Amino acid sequence: MIIIMGLPGAGKSSVLSGVEGMGWKVLNYGTLMFEIAQKAYKLTNRDEMRKLPVEKQKKVQEEVAHRLSQEKGKVILDTHCSIRTAKGYLPGLPFSLLEKLPVDSIALITATPEEVMGRRKTDDTRVRDPEPIDSVREHDMMNKSLLAAYAAHRGCPARIIYNHDGKLEEAVRQLKQMLE
Amino acid sequence: MIIIMGLPGAGKSSVLSGVEGMGWKVLNYGTLMFEIAQKAYKLTNRDEMRKLPVEKQKKVQEEVAHRLSQEKGKVILDTHCSIRTAKGYLPGLPFSLLEKLPVDSIALITATPEEVMGRRKTDDTRVRDPEPIDSVREHDMMNKSLLAAYAAHRGCPARIIYNHDGKLEEAVRQLKQMLE
Amino acid sequence: MIIIMGLPGAGKSSVLSGVEGMGWKVLNYGTLMFEIAQKAYKLTNRDEMRKLPVEKQKKVQEEVAHRLSQEKGKVILDTHCSIRTAKGYLPGLPFSLLEKLPVDSIALITATPEEVMGRRKTDDTRVRDPEPIDSVREHDMMNKSLLAAYAAHRGCPARIIYNHDGKLEEAVRQLKQMLE
Repeated sequence: MIIIMGLPGAGKSSVLSGVEGMGWKVLNYGTLMFEIAQKAYKLTNRDEMRKLPVEKQKKVQEEVAHRLSQEKGKVILDTHCSIRTAKGYLPGLPFSLLEKLPVDSIALITATPEEVMGRRKTDDTRVRDPEPIDSVREHDMMNKSLLAAYAAHRGCPARIIYNHDGKLEEAVRQLKQMLE
Repeated sequence: MIIIMGLPGAGKSSVLSGVEGMGWKVLNYGTLMFEIAQKAYKLTNRDEMRKLPVEKQKKVQEEVAHRLSQEKGKVILDTHCSIRTAKGYLPGLPFSLLEKLPVDSIALITATPEEVMGRRKTDDTRVRDPEPIDSVREHDMMNKSLLAAYAAHRGCPARIIYNHDGKLEEAVRQLKQMLE
Repeated sequence: MIIIMGLPGAGKSSVLSGVEGMGWKVLNYGTLMFEIAQKAYKLTNRDEMRKLPVEKQKKVQEEVAHRLSQEKGKVILDTHCSIRTAKGYLPGLPFSLLEKLPVDSIALITATPEEVMGRRKTDDTRVRDPEPIDSVREHDMMNKSLLAAYAAHRGCPARIIYNHDGKLEEAVRQLKQMLE
């Protein structure tokens, strides 16, 4: 299993599209969480997930970790490195989750703060809160520090892949190196 | 429990004063350590703590962790993210301590290295070793990386709060968001 | 035990030479790995190590950790903070290894990316892949974040020692402070 994470606006989806057809199954952590919570607690939309009591959220997380540990083939897990909340950056791969997953390596897709800002502005398919550039820079720095902590905990390699404007092919090439 | 940490000169005390009266009990880790060591080993001043054999220091730490885990209400734990020593940056929240505490979120109060330097110079109540600005920048960078490691270990959110010159109210507002 | 790590080109060997004669035994992690793998699996050169099945590599690592935990005197362990591979930065001190070692403190020897580049160019004894300066800067940043994660896990101090051009004595002086 390879875990791919990215800052919103870094273009993770585009980079992932570039490795289709190589025999890897892409699973989205948030989608898996919702599928399980939907059945277990009869949720109708994703926003209800955050309102679940912490105990129930943890049960859902454990069930997701269990399902992922059962996957046999080549799996890419698509998730967040951290989520920005009012209480701070919430790690997407806390050690309690990470230690249950059969991880081979981890990648963080990113870009310069300026590129991320530019893409968020022209992104017409999703509504995102406007954020000052220093805040994007801070989120990116925290993601890189979290990436190092994840790698140190798991003992696996961690790569930072820059998806610069007009250089999608280079980012895809770097991700392919990890999948070979 | 919320843990608040800060670089010396970042103005942690001022920010903490701003959230008085919200029903949170503020406990200082160093003070707790000294209270316990004082009784157990008849110390008369804080400097004697460092001279205790490592085994005794560990016992005191365990006792502090035990007391903190017994706290029922809304507690702010005031401690260091790391302490600068001749042997390097000593983490204030090693995983062995962190895993014993019922932590909800962690905050690091900081400021630009220039602001920190300026405040240390005009701070007439404490004697601090003069430090070059690169050294303040390095300490701040290590604190942020440690913050990420603490968050990854605990699976809790971690926020960086800038207490910029003349912007204390904004820093207090951000801390209040974490306490709500 | 003190662990000394460094970016290739940071001058770790020169700094280590400066503390000879102080009664510390210097052990190189890679050399220990090879000595054990050589006997156990009849390897003839170091390159064969990477080709060993992961299970065998892990057994060798465990044997190295066991031997190091038996060392009684003052030991400096010379190793990598992380190794740059096609799959990413591979941590040199994964928590699974770190928790077996009797570590007192950790040091990272580094220099500015420009100094590292300059030294790699004039280094005629080893062949190194040419690397752009941004890549050296990224490796150095990841090493510092890993250093923080190692320190947080072990609860020990971690120091960054700059070995600037023409300032070897200052770097040696800082390392000596850690050995006293």
